Amino acid sequence: MAKARKPKPLFDRACFIGIGLIGSSVARAMRRAGLAGTYVACDKNPKHVKAAVKLGVADEATSNYAKAVAGADLIVLATPVGTNGEIARVIAPHLKKGAIVTDVGSVKRMVIDAVAPHLPKDVHFVPAHPIAGTEHSGPEAGFAELFENRWSIITPPKRASAKAVAKVAELWRKMGAKVDTMDPDHHDMVLAITSHLPHLIAYTIVGTATDLSGDLKQEVIKYSASGFRDFTRIAASDPIMWRDVFLNNREAVLEILQRFTEDLTAMQRAIRKGDGATLEGHFARTRAIRRSIIDAKQA
Amino acid sequence: MAKARKPKPLFDRACFIGIGLIGSSVARAMRRAGLAGTYVACDKNPKHVKAAVKLGVADEATSNYAKAVAGADLIVLATPVGTNGEIARVIAPHLKKGAIVTDVGSVKRMVIDAVAPHLPKDVHFVPAHPIAGTEHSGPEAGFAELFENRWSIITPPKRASAKAVAKVAELWRKMGAKVDTMDPDHHDMVLAITSHLPHLIAYTIVGTATDLSGDLKQEVIKYSASGFRDFTRIAASDPIMWRDVFLNNREAVLEILQRFTEDLTAMQRAIRKGDGATLEGHFARTRAIRRSIIDAKQA
Repeated sequence: MAKARKPKPLFDRACFIGIGLIGSSVARAMRRAGLAGTYVACDKNPKHVKAAVKLGVADEATSNYAKAVAGADLIVLATPVGTNGEIARVIAPHLKKGAIVTDVGSVKRMVIDAVAPHLPKDVHFVPAHPIAGTEHSGPEAGFAELFENRWSIITPPKRASAKAVAKVAELWRKMGAKVDTMDPDHHDMVLAITSHLPHLIAYTIVGTATDLSGDLKQEVIKYSASGFRDFTRIAASDPIMWRDVFLNNREAVLEILQRFTEDLTAMQRAIRKGDGATLEGHFARTRAIRRSIIDAKQA
Repeated sequence: MAKARKPKPLFDRACFIGIGLIGSSVARAMRRAGLAGTYVACDKNPKHVKAAVKLGVADEATSNYAKAVAGADLIVLATPVGTNGEIARVIAPHLKKGAIVTDVGSVKRMVIDAVAPHLPKDVHFVPAHPIAGTEHSGPEAGFAELFENRWSIITPPKRASAKAVAKVAELWRKMGAKVDTMDPDHHDMVLAITSHLPHLIAYTIVGTATDLSGDLKQEVIKYSASGFRDFTRIAASDPIMWRDVFLNNREAVLEILQRFTEDLTAMQRAIRKGDGATLEGHFARTRAIRRSIIDAKQA
């Protein structure tokens, strides 16, 4: 009997630098869809290197960046955004001509500014950001379905190769994601509002509770279902990843934080003055946004 | 054949003042467990009165407080907390001797101070607060399972009848809840942290996003899955209920808000100064609280 010929995968050799929650999820999603011939994991944490092979996430794994990227036609940067510039500098001399370098970071402008100058002219840099994740970390936490029906935002630099951009878009679509293209600076402002500020606030309020005396803290844990619990899930996200997000999207985060603080001060004043009309008016209009999210099928 | 004799229900006639999400859920949960002979709904909203009977939540329904409480041996106040004092004044002359009045409010000290002085000496007031709810409102939104495995906190005034307190505790246990007893002022501080501040912050950040220009607002809705979405659910809760919570738990909310604001200012400073060590240290310790909540089976 004739065997059905396997279609040629999108990439021959895909290399993942950083094989944590997101890196390992991309590898799994690509493998499920048959998007690469060989999967190579690279991580400075030796436990992650071992786990990547043991879990079947990668065919080969190493802590050596030069070896990892050698011969790869796709390189996915999936480490905390603050490390991307230095990694680009280290891998640059070892990159294959025509290779595509992409990333998954929550900040785009600083990553482009840090990575692009190091890369050879015959290598294509196409930054991307999948809007997906969980509060868990490490290669064990990844799963192939993470990006299904979620957005992935591509923020191509001005002189990016249209072919390379199309290939990265295809990569995300084949992993089940919906693809959007955005200017890097605009991306950083949108994410400052939808993601970075919510995480900062969740981290802060959970920290405020952590500082409470022992008995009160125990009761906060016991009665967390009344609202607090939702914040603790967000505030359990990876600390180093988030440190780097705030350090690398400083301007946009500080701008939106300033607006939030002004609004919070207005709420505080209304409570202090017993101004029920202001409180009710404010609380009523926020319901509309929830309805819009439900209508947009994002709830 | 001899019929199995039905056990006598805990109450002959239960009256629900306010038949929204919580009031109708208590009625449904009581009915499911067979805790009352007759169910009477009272609501100033004529639509709720009609719905209560149509949905089978109540046997009788009226907008007349005096008629509603006549002959009832259990009265459940389930209206926004700011209304409880006035309702107590209106129903007081019509209450049956020995009746138990309870409530479900998120604030306890102000409710006790507003309600207790109106009630006759031969009526027992046993305030309670079930730590359960959803972002939906109205009698249609209620369901019998809402309180299963959730905490209900009873905050008996100093001279409360032990028998009446025990009966309200039994009522909650038979609806599937776990019961705790707490001093009213302490309750108000615990809830300010676990519930009131998280709701205020969620309302504020969603309000900040509502103020954005049209295009940016659409993108915030589109990419809400990145953290913002969790806040919008909380900020879709009933505006009048929450207005009353903040007006009636002012001191505790302002105290905990003050601490939160100081902590947020410290985070803001760390971002502005590029102080990664402070950010990482803060983000790392908040993970521990999430683990405690998971260990306490509240996640």
